[in-house]
Amino acid sequence: MFGAALAAAAAQVQDRLAQAMATLPDQPVSHAMRYAVAGGKGVRGFLVLEGARLHDAPPEAALAAAAAVEALHAYSLVHDDLPAMDDDDLRRGQPTVHVKWDEATAILAGDALQSLAFELLTEPVIGPADIRIALLRGLAGAAGARGMVLGQALDIAAETAPAPLTLEEITELQSGKTGALIRWSAEAGPIIAGADPSSLGNYADALGLAFQIADDILDVEGDQETAGKRLRKDAAAGKATFVSHLGLEGARRRAAELVALAEAALDPYGSRAETLREAARFVIARRN
Amino acid sequence: MFGAALAAAAAQVQDRLAQAMATLPDQPVSHAMRYAVAGGKGVRGFLVLEGARLHDAPPEAALAAAAAVEALHAYSLVHDDLPAMDDDDLRRGQPTVHVKWDEATAILAGDALQSLAFELLTEPVIGPADIRIALLRGLAGAAGARGMVLGQALDIAAETAPAPLTLEEITELQSGKTGALIRWSAEAGPIIAGADPSSLGNYADALGLAFQIADDILDVEGDQETAGKRLRKDAAAGKATFVSHLGLEGARRRAAELVALAEAALDPYGSRAETLREAARFVIARRN
Repeated sequence: MFGAALAAAAAQVQDRLAQAMATLPDQPVSHAMRYAVAGGKGVRGFLVLEGARLHDAPPEAALAAAAAVEALHAYSLVHDDLPAMDDDDLRRGQPTVHVKWDEATAILAGDALQSLAFELLTEPVIGPADIRIALLRGLAGAAGARGMVLGQALDIAAETAPAPLTLEEITELQSGKTGALIRWSAEAGPIIAGADPSSLGNYADALGLAFQIADDILDVEGDQETAGKRLRKDAAAGKATFVSHLGLEGARRRAAELVALAEAALDPYGSRAETLREAARFVIARRN
Repeated sequence: MFGAALAAAAAQVQDRLAQAMATLPDQPVSHAMRYAVAGGKGVRGFLVLEGARLHDAPPEAALAAAAAVEALHAYSLVHDDLPAMDDDDLRRGQPTVHVKWDEATAILAGDALQSLAFELLTEPVIGPADIRIALLRGLAGAAGARGMVLGQALDIAAETAPAPLTLEEITELQSGKTGALIRWSAEAGPIIAGADPSSLGNYADALGLAFQIADDILDVEGDQETAGKRLRKDAAAGKATFVSHLGLEGARRRAAELVALAEAALDPYGSRAETLREAARFVIARRN
């Protein structure tokens, strides 16, 4: 049920993004933008659509917001993969953008995807201007030097730090790098509906951290082909991770606790939130 | 008069940006962001403040919009200077961000400055939410794959193109690379005031093109120390420019025509727009 819901959401969001990029000039940077948004799991977009469904927000409004966060996420992956950053040649089982095109095109495609994300949130279909402003303000904060960019900067700094990061520092890093955007995604639906986003925000905080712990476990245990990206990079780089701190068993236990917390945060929604509960359980069972 | 107005505007916008970045985490990426916005001429911010003054828009509203466009402009310079793009080591007489820090920090500082630009435009001080949305939508469009990013992509593609660009292609390139943001800046004031932005938009179109032609002239004739950036790069790279197409005299003449057009667009404002007229004349007289 969750797998099907995720795939259906991803397909819808892909269509919405294709529509938003349909009239871009016929330039390599436009092609690179379309390539960069293709093939992802679409977890963030799914969270937007599910949060909107739980609050009976209009699907077209949710779809624009879901497309925005997936564009922003795609930009961050394109830039993170650059040689000067994580230097990854494989993403979602395909060559990364700077490998397929070149570094300049990757930098520019990422830049334009960030602009596109904010442009999508100005769409009238989302609703009254003050709702759109709330989404825009939240996304800009989640993306910038207090959120995602901060997390990535801390991650890169960790590679040359004199001492491995503490568990607290890793948690702070991840809260910026992935947590802020996941929280925004879960809160977008209630915000569009003019409802209180705090339950879904709490769900997202637990989910985001569980997701990252699962990523660290996957990096150690995963199968490269299934994962679609290079594994064993953290261990090779001697980086501190949730696994290096907690051990494999400890990391699994912590992830399971967080999934329980995430599920509990959904209590106010009763059985309507079953897909989101499944999503949380999926996080610790996934293989890519 | 224009020089003093420009300097005063730049100082105000710098202060506003410093305030917006005052509470950023104490990280290299935050320091690099502050460094990147410092020391520019602040032409775009000045245009916002002047446009606002002509329409009696609240100065604090204009200041937030001016800070936004200067943050966006600064991001574009940091990324354009990267080794994979224009590979410049000098900007505003100082080492570029990737030289002073490193490439990863430059990419991230640029990314966060783009987020900051959009965040600033969500500030309630700017006015009603629909005004803020209009500014946000305009800036996202001017910044992205139909505007500034397109212009920079065309510029980089020109370096390896089999044939030099035609005059029409150079004009299209510049319309994206610098024109879109300059137009947004001039239109922001009337938009904040709820007035018709078309006269200032026409002014900006002529001004932006004149500015770029003057840049090409400066690249050929200028003094490196006064300019504060590397000159003679276009000729060395065999790039087509307004000067290579029109000759020095022809380029000067075209710039003068455009300045006359820009001045004429200000007729509805009478003598109140004298500073903007001076700004247009300054474009063809400047030495940096």
